[in-house]
Amino acid sequence: MKLAFTLEYAGTDFSGFQSQKNALTIQYYLEEAIRKITDQETKINYSGRTDAGVHALSQVFDFETQIKRDEEKWIKGINSNLPKSIAVKNVFNVSDDFDSRFSAIERRYSYVIYNSPNKPLFFDNFSYWVTNDLDINIIKAQLNMFLGDHDFSSFRSSSCGSKNPNKSISYVDVETVNNFIIITIVANAFLQNMVRIIVGTLIDIAKNEKKMSVRDIIEKKDRTYAGKTAPAHGLFFLGPKYKDEFNIDTFESNILDRLKN
Amino acid sequence: MKLAFTLEYAGTDFSGFQSQKNALTIQYYLEEAIRKITDQETKINYSGRTDAGVHALSQVFDFETQIKRDEEKWIKGINSNLPKSIAVKNVFNVSDDFDSRFSAIERRYSYVIYNSPNKPLFFDNFSYWVTNDLDINIIKAQLNMFLGDHDFSSFRSSSCGSKNPNKSISYVDVETVNNFIIITIVANAFLQNMVRIIVGTLIDIAKNEKKMSVRDIIEKKDRTYAGKTAPAHGLFFLGPKYKDEFNIDTFESNILDRLKN
Repeated sequence: MKLAFTLEYAGTDFSGFQSQKNALTIQYYLEEAIRKITDQETKINYSGRTDAGVHALSQVFDFETQIKRDEEKWIKGINSNLPKSIAVKNVFNVSDDFDSRFSAIERRYSYVIYNSPNKPLFFDNFSYWVTNDLDINIIKAQLNMFLGDHDFSSFRSSSCGSKNPNKSISYVDVETVNNFIIITIVANAFLQNMVRIIVGTLIDIAKNEKKMSVRDIIEKKDRTYAGKTAPAHGLFFLGPKYKDEFNIDTFESNILDRLKN
Repeated sequence: MKLAFTLEYAGTDFSGFQSQKNALTIQYYLEEAIRKITDQETKINYSGRTDAGVHALSQVFDFETQIKRDEEKWIKGINSNLPKSIAVKNVFNVSDDFDSRFSAIERRYSYVIYNSPNKPLFFDNFSYWVTNDLDINIIKAQLNMFLGDHDFSSFRSSSCGSKNPNKSISYVDVETVNNFIIITIVANAFLQNMVRIIVGTLIDIAKNEKKMSVRDIIEKKDRTYAGKTAPAHGLFFLGPKYKDEFNIDTFESNILDRLKN
């Protein structure tokens, strides 16, 4: 029997998602919590790793188990063994051919900028503070240039190990709410630091620190032409989307509703 | 010349407002920041101390200085020397007889409860998580009983040093926004832990863990009849109100607008 869970977390206090030696990662806490309630060592699959400081509203992970238990009990059992800034939300019975990572056809991220001369006191861990007044129309026009299939070599970390730099962005959006600017991007998959470099580049262009357009930077296929990498703590993973056949809905569409709970 | 400032802070990382030996308090950071930009040792007056973990949207402090400087420069100068979860907002030239504490005629506090079976992931430092479904009508009816002049001996900490337990509550309100319950109280002054004991009592009554009404608990004038003290991290000081003659507006009326920035 295979179970898939949606998971949310505030990434502030963790060394990213993926297990690593001598670091407290979200995967570590999850596998520990599962071990405590199943009495079995469990290795989870998950839809995408997130860096230290990055948050998630709907990460997905799965594992095999022979244990039968009510959905409610799985959720309460795991949550009561997790730190308070990590929580599972939903559980789904999935078919054996489901894999949190490989069955995903799309991933959605939002990046939150706090655009104000004043300090972002209560959202400091959940937004990137930019004091220059950013022109939303410039951001919108440049962001739209990312739509479609591109070689994103200009927008990947130099340590990115992905063999294929071609990705397909199917949706972009920018909205403002009070002093927040929220940039949302949906793609079939992302390269390492891709969203953060996209956002950093949009900010540099809006600040007029970079004169090249997004279209031209994509064309260069060279990281040195893009802008700075925006910091991790403004980034939210809103979750993957799966093929219809799996019949599970794991997508968070609106970040502000969730931030307000 | 006397200057008064409004100040906001997230209390999470500090040992409360008031200076104390061997502790990093908000007053310590403020006086350090003022010293750095004035080159003078300065002792501030302030409207009300807040405990460790308590936040403020509009604390007020004042000090005397002979230095002339643009308002904007005072604010930027102090802010650039403060930790990022403390910020001054406005500065006012006030008359010599102004005192942040003694000139105040009212104080406003809001307390934020996160009422949900789910963890308050992104508001964990700024709300008190209560999982039992609280009946807002019970809270409203009981809260209204606090209105008016009362001896609040039942609602003060056992270590409260105030000589007079009689206070006057002029305004109460409870509102719900998504999973948040926000309780607001305005009084001429408050006893130690008064808001937190009021809120803890309202929660205990709404949970049916306490059968006595607020009216009867006030009547007892005995702390043992009231409920638990709600934790500090759900409490926000929204600021004092001053006599009209001082002509300064230092009151934050709406906490959610500010939390959303």
